[in-house]
Amino acid sequence: MTPEQDYHMSPEEFRQWGYKTIDWIVKYWENIENLPVLSQVEPGDIRAKLPENAPQTGESFEEILQDLDRIIVPGLTNWQSPNFFAFFPGAISGPAILGDLISGGVAIQGMLWITSPACTELETHVLDWLVDMLGLPEQFKSSGTGGGVIHDTASSACLAALVAAREQANADINKLVAYISTQAHSSIEKGIKIAGLRRENVRFIEVDRNYAMKPDVLEQCIAADLKAGLIPCYLAATVGTTSSNAIDPLAALGAIAQKYNIWLHVDAAMCGTAALCPEFRWIHQGMEFADSYCFNPHKWMLTNFDCTCFWVKDRTKLTQALSIVPEYLKNQATESGKVIDYRDWQIPLGRRFRSLKLWFVIRHYGVEGLQHYVRKHVALAQEFAEWVKSHPSFELFVNPPLNLVCFRYKGDDKANQTILDTINASGKVYFTGTKLDGKLILRMAIAQAKTDKANVELAWQLICEVAESLAVTV
Amino acid sequence: MTPEQDYHMSPEEFRQWGYKTIDWIVKYWENIENLPVLSQVEPGDIRAKLPENAPQTGESFEEILQDLDRIIVPGLTNWQSPNFFAFFPGAISGPAILGDLISGGVAIQGMLWITSPACTELETHVLDWLVDMLGLPEQFKSSGTGGGVIHDTASSACLAALVAAREQANADINKLVAYISTQAHSSIEKGIKIAGLRRENVRFIEVDRNYAMKPDVLEQCIAADLKAGLIPCYLAATVGTTSSNAIDPLAALGAIAQKYNIWLHVDAAMCGTAALCPEFRWIHQGMEFADSYCFNPHKWMLTNFDCTCFWVKDRTKLTQALSIVPEYLKNQATESGKVIDYRDWQIPLGRRFRSLKLWFVIRHYGVEGLQHYVRKHVALAQEFAEWVKSHPSFELFVNPPLNLVCFRYKGDDKANQTILDTINASGKVYFTGTKLDGKLILRMAIAQAKTDKANVELAWQLICEVAESLAVTV
Repeated sequence: MTPEQDYHMSPEEFRQWGYKTIDWIVKYWENIENLPVLSQVEPGDIRAKLPENAPQTGESFEEILQDLDRIIVPGLTNWQSPNFFAFFPGAISGPAILGDLISGGVAIQGMLWITSPACTELETHVLDWLVDMLGLPEQFKSSGTGGGVIHDTASSACLAALVAAREQANADINKLVAYISTQAHSSIEKGIKIAGLRRENVRFIEVDRNYAMKPDVLEQCIAADLKAGLIPCYLAATVGTTSSNAIDPLAALGAIAQKYNIWLHVDAAMCGTAALCPEFRWIHQGMEFADSYCFNPHKWMLTNFDCTCFWVKDRTKLTQALSIVPEYLKNQATESGKVIDYRDWQIPLGRRFRSLKLWFVIRHYGVEGLQHYVRKHVALAQEFAEWVKSHPSFELFVNPPLNLVCFRYKGDDKANQTILDTINASGKVYFTGTKLDGKLILRMAIAQAKTDKANVELAWQLICEVAESLAVTV
Repeated sequence: MTPEQDYHMSPEEFRQWGYKTIDWIVKYWENIENLPVLSQVEPGDIRAKLPENAPQTGESFEEILQDLDRIIVPGLTNWQSPNFFAFFPGAISGPAILGDLISGGVAIQGMLWITSPACTELETHVLDWLVDMLGLPEQFKSSGTGGGVIHDTASSACLAALVAAREQANADINKLVAYISTQAHSSIEKGIKIAGLRRENVRFIEVDRNYAMKPDVLEQCIAADLKAGLIPCYLAATVGTTSSNAIDPLAALGAIAQKYNIWLHVDAAMCGTAALCPEFRWIHQGMEFADSYCFNPHKWMLTNFDCTCFWVKDRTKLTQALSIVPEYLKNQATESGKVIDYRDWQIPLGRRFRSLKLWFVIRHYGVEGLQHYVRKHVALAQEFAEWVKSHPSFELFVNPPLNLVCFRYKGDDKANQTILDTINASGKVYFTGTKLDGKLILRMAIAQAKTDKANVELAWQLICEVAESLAVTV
């Protein structure tokens, strides 16, 4: 009998190609500043290079790796470039990538405690660590009634919190009202839509001159809704809005949420990481009012996507909203009540071993290493803001609380759009805009792992050059 | 000025530890049959080995890797063991892991086309490939009105489909009705709950003797709901239920869905992969009626979690339900209408470059390599079923359509539970049970990447031995 054909990579082949893949990544990073930050391809360019049909027989891994350079790299917008200042960052690190690689190699499912106890217990433990690391209230620790879990994104965390809030209200869904600021992230509005609340029952609360939610307006709004027979159930506050990094006043909002028995969810997707440093913990003042809280280590804490840390004050409210236990998932450990089954803390059933990468990052950097980068990025942003303020053709739009600078060329939207488009088309730097008070605002988010002062200087130099050329042509 | 302290791994350190991590994974795989398949730790054992607080200063990567063996491995239930037959499989492969590693290394965000065109276009392209590879109807291709997207799990795909169905119905949410079989996966009921439909408006349709949904009962139920003034909106059919691999009759169900304008979602989480082989495509008969369809390459197609492929017949229905476009995400490519922004096809905003691993798998194995493993697993399951049938103390509970065998020791539930518990506690094999018609049934899901005939024989031998010892003690 001839041995059966085996199409798998042998362990030795995996080792060989694993090394080459690591080498490929190192080379990609070393070359990243020579690549345009914003991909310069046109729609359809990438697909045009791909064969119409899948191959019938296997191809060599060498060819596959070559096609990365030939087909994929030109179509990347290089988020890991130190000249990437767009949107919010997605900072990564070596230990995070390797922790994630281990997660891929062991490839366990963490849906139940029994399906890999280490996946559940490491996650609970590291999220307890983070409560202390960030100076969050004790209510979020697993030793009490709370606890933490890793979600894919802040969108999903916000949706899970909302479903818990909706179930807590236990009333006609058509009467439930959710409150967010006009500056809240679009994912919150999307979550409200997914959870089935009526779109006309979302209140976009007015903001103050720093773009933070106005507590008095919120309370008036709640009163009006109650008078109209509606039922306030969910308030989403933001610590560091996407447009301008505004910090909603948690203490004042929280007192109102408590008074009216409304679930308070706090989204600190990017800025939460700042609380690693005691001097920035003021952003979380009032957090003791929060029923749930999330931030994304995959933005500013050097941990690969996806990794959103999500805590609740009362875990039973979350699990009651999300638990359904069929026969094929029953087991003694679950029935003993001694373990956490994280499937009941999230939207999907399946889950990857995501705490590994977070554990690796915290251990590799230590608290002090992580603090170092937060302080560095905030200092760079503050310096950039000074340059803006001292330049006659630019204005600072708001005082940057942390690492996001919102500014504007003293001209119309068209001029600002030209600056944005010209620089992004050059491929040297990538940054994005937003609208505040109907005006186009330029944003510099400074938080990529390898961003140094020279990169921020380069960006500012390019911005000034384009602005100068505008002044000449006008 | 002293050079700034840098806490990052240097590229050379990353290379060194990257190689060691690859080596660690190879060693883990080589040793996997010496590890208990089901983790033998007690609740709290893993946490007890972890320090109470996060480290203030960084630790060496060597220590971290050592702790994997010391702390983590004992707490793994080893899904990649060839002796893992529990739940549904989570088969992986070398090329998938390395594709995922590249995704971690380039660490781009695929939320918009512009944020990495290659991420979007490769995904669209590979999902078009798969339509042909699986013999799915043309309606799912991006060249027409449809298209495919990668979600994390079938749970999320089901929820996205449901939200689209709910918006299509465009009526009072309290009147909307969803239909699933009594055998549908719990994630579908969970999705219905998340999307805000009333729990009393979920109909669990009776199944036939093969545990497939009864079309006549469905139609009676719809008629009764219409008569009561309710609005049928969503029908979820399953190709390969979790308990027994039952295949719902898509053609008959689809005709009813069409008649009453109900969204038909088809969930083929594990079994969809079988359609790679023309001889198994009968499972998808009637798929042309489906508004949406999903299957999980992360179950049986050798691709690491998370990777659920999800197609819709009319992509505008999906994007209308899930799109919200704030200022900070606006860009010319989106406004041109020439590109796909996958953020509008899914629950979260952020997304990893998941198509890389799928592309790597399809190219490494080719269609014929992937077919090979499907045929092998189905043949092993059919052989196992023959062993069950020819053994006087066991009975086959249903004829296995593909690779999942449901059987039972001819004794009471207690005896069957003892067989399950005894074998799982031995650590040699892990399999799980379910309940059908109120009886405990044993399940063998045969689909792990490295499972060979010897592993299935070992499992059967252990099962027979425990059964024999039961017969003696009784």
